[in-house]
Amino acid sequence: MSAEQKAAAGGPVDLQAIGQRARAAACILAGLDSQRKNSLLLDISGAIVDALPQIIAANAEDLDAAQASGMSESLMDRLLLDEKRLQGIAADVRSIASLPDPVGTVMDGRELDSGLFLMRRRVPLGVVAAVYEARPNVTVDISALCLKTGNAVILRGGKETLHSNAALTRVIEICLERAGLPAEAVQHINSPDRALLTELLHLDAYVDMLIPRGGEGLQRLCREESRIPVITGGIGVCHIFVDKKVDADKALKVVENAKMQRPSACNAVETLLLHADIAAAFLPRLIARLVPLGATLHLDAAAAALLGPNCPQGTMPVQKGDYDKEWLSYDFNVRVVTDLEEAVAHIRTHGTAHSEAVLTEDLAVATRFVNEVDAAAVYVNASTRFTDGGQFGLGAEVAISTQKLHARGPMGPDTLTTWKWIAYGDYTIRE
Amino acid sequence: MSAEQKAAAGGPVDLQAIGQRARAAACILAGLDSQRKNSLLLDISGAIVDALPQIIAANAEDLDAAQASGMSESLMDRLLLDEKRLQGIAADVRSIASLPDPVGTVMDGRELDSGLFLMRRRVPLGVVAAVYEARPNVTVDISALCLKTGNAVILRGGKETLHSNAALTRVIEICLERAGLPAEAVQHINSPDRALLTELLHLDAYVDMLIPRGGEGLQRLCREESRIPVITGGIGVCHIFVDKKVDADKALKVVENAKMQRPSACNAVETLLLHADIAAAFLPRLIARLVPLGATLHLDAAAAALLGPNCPQGTMPVQKGDYDKEWLSYDFNVRVVTDLEEAVAHIRTHGTAHSEAVLTEDLAVATRFVNEVDAAAVYVNASTRFTDGGQFGLGAEVAISTQKLHARGPMGPDTLTTWKWIAYGDYTIRE
Repeated sequence: MSAEQKAAAGGPVDLQAIGQRARAAACILAGLDSQRKNSLLLDISGAIVDALPQIIAANAEDLDAAQASGMSESLMDRLLLDEKRLQGIAADVRSIASLPDPVGTVMDGRELDSGLFLMRRRVPLGVVAAVYEARPNVTVDISALCLKTGNAVILRGGKETLHSNAALTRVIEICLERAGLPAEAVQHINSPDRALLTELLHLDAYVDMLIPRGGEGLQRLCREESRIPVITGGIGVCHIFVDKKVDADKALKVVENAKMQRPSACNAVETLLLHADIAAAFLPRLIARLVPLGATLHLDAAAAALLGPNCPQGTMPVQKGDYDKEWLSYDFNVRVVTDLEEAVAHIRTHGTAHSEAVLTEDLAVATRFVNEVDAAAVYVNASTRFTDGGQFGLGAEVAISTQKLHARGPMGPDTLTTWKWIAYGDYTIRE
Repeated sequence: MSAEQKAAAGGPVDLQAIGQRARAAACILAGLDSQRKNSLLLDISGAIVDALPQIIAANAEDLDAAQASGMSESLMDRLLLDEKRLQGIAADVRSIASLPDPVGTVMDGRELDSGLFLMRRRVPLGVVAAVYEARPNVTVDISALCLKTGNAVILRGGKETLHSNAALTRVIEICLERAGLPAEAVQHINSPDRALLTELLHLDAYVDMLIPRGGEGLQRLCREESRIPVITGGIGVCHIFVDKKVDADKALKVVENAKMQRPSACNAVETLLLHADIAAAFLPRLIARLVPLGATLHLDAAAAALLGPNCPQGTMPVQKGDYDKEWLSYDFNVRVVTDLEEAVAHIRTHGTAHSEAVLTEDLAVATRFVNEVDAAAVYVNASTRFTDGGQFGLGAEVAISTQKLHARGPMGPDTLTTWKWIAYGDYTIRE
């Protein structure tokens, strides 16, 4: 019985063997031209649609187990794969097929004084590992992006999605095989064993990049335990600073968009910093507009003082720790600040370097905010909600990085590549 | 830690405080224009020359201690700072001042369908940490590159260089202060306490990138222990494949250059892979040329068989492990291979993805080698010795990365930066 068969049978998983097979597959994938990779992706897209009944049946097993374990409705919803969602996933794969292929492009090059002709050419990273929670769509998403860029991938999904992930990766394996490519290009760790995660994080001999997509605990574990270079991100404590020189009507519209459109997104705003000069006029309008929509405002003492002795409905005093919280809900903090300095200092203390915005008509304030706030994305007069690969025109998104190495902000297909320095000489030696 | 070492260290080191001060300094450095940074570098260059007697005196203390501890002569030589070397270090700082400043350049930008004008602007990483061995020149080198790119730096040099590093960083601190900048922009951990290294590796709250410059043990420790993103590299098990269609005279010249010019460099060649069709003619000429220069050839069985029953002078059989060894000496391995596939397979098994070369007149062989060998630098008809920031026209070199994330190969000043996505809107919201 092969290691894979053992894994499918629920037996022990041999991660060293998985790593070796991924590395071997990566060597083959790296040599594929764009047309062959895109044909494979189109085949996968079609095969997902063809396999709808099997995938939905596998997903039903996960859903049953989840229900039995008392999973919350919102998590159950993330887990659900129905026909509409699977059609959407298949469409995403087709759209990844239509993106330009970064692999093989020459980034720069020139003839050196030594006579060497030197260039940098984009090449796949090699082997990518993704660790994520109960989102079966990530299985297809990351696999498609890795295949697009010639990378092999090792997937470790949430234990709640084992059946769904196995069904989805089986579809991809079949497509790889009928394209004459190694099925091991996409391998799913088909076991919930927690010890395997630690072992995966130590697989630096075979894996070039690790992408954890999940909450703070997972990110921290990966940063602490991984010997593979990690891209952390996706946790957004985002701010909007409303300056004194502002069009209040338009500013209200932007704040509403940043908080209410999709509060579970990492680019939704957590804390509004109001310039003291406009806070008294702005805050009541904000409450009047957002509380009826379901918002809860957590007010600092200065903001609360502007509203009189009683907390209006939909407001409460800010608590210790609130400024560092990613709400992921219709809650947000409001703090009154005396000037730009205080706003920037607040963001430096509490921000996660994800997305930060200033709303102002004052060019000097805008420029200073842009220069002094250190985050993946900094906005002038725009909603923080734009921090997204699709919105930024990257076509698709691997993750959103909030670290500074390799990639920052929305990660497009380019970030699944590295480069090779290639030099042609005429038996050239270094003097 | 001995009493004397404690005295030299000047009391306990508070790494959390060092991290906080570095972060605060980084905010100020990020706002400096190029002219101010370059003036600072020119001042440092002059101040090193002015402080020659003090630096040499401090270095003498390190040398005395090293001699007393029985340090080898070659390590003593690496440790030595004399007038000529310090003049060279000062000149390097001036040349870093003259390089273009990557910070502030706009990498790309465009108007999006949403109406946002989006651009990526290069910004400093923030805080860089460097861990290195007994090379006091690295102290100035890394500090100058970090200041050039607006980064604060935390230095952890070898315990053998404490006095030298303290004297050099004191010179830099004085220059920072008289430029009205925080002296904490460059901080040297002035203690040999081993526990501080582990603590430094966990300082991810304040440090954005860690550069270990040293041997395999240090690299492995950093990869295993660090919570800060690490750039590993600088270990080169490099190969040259001599194809059957080759100009043997010219090939000999390239091999000589790659091995003999500076065998202690990471880009020197370790293993020569000889195509079987030319091995019998090539090998005796190689021996005749390189053995008189001091080379020792470690031959595989096929190569040895070509030379008859007795090992010629300067040759010996290859031993287990030799193919994975970075010789750093006039030793190298010679293996006979039947074709390009076998050469590529050998490189995949034993290479460290540093620098690999093919010598051939056959374009198809050259193209396949370039495509199939996965390394930071791949050469056609050139010596592996070119893998170097200066040779590649980058002006200066932070390190040579053999990993694939963030930077690969020689790391120029650009690699001490990241980017910020900056978007200007007109109170733009996401639909």
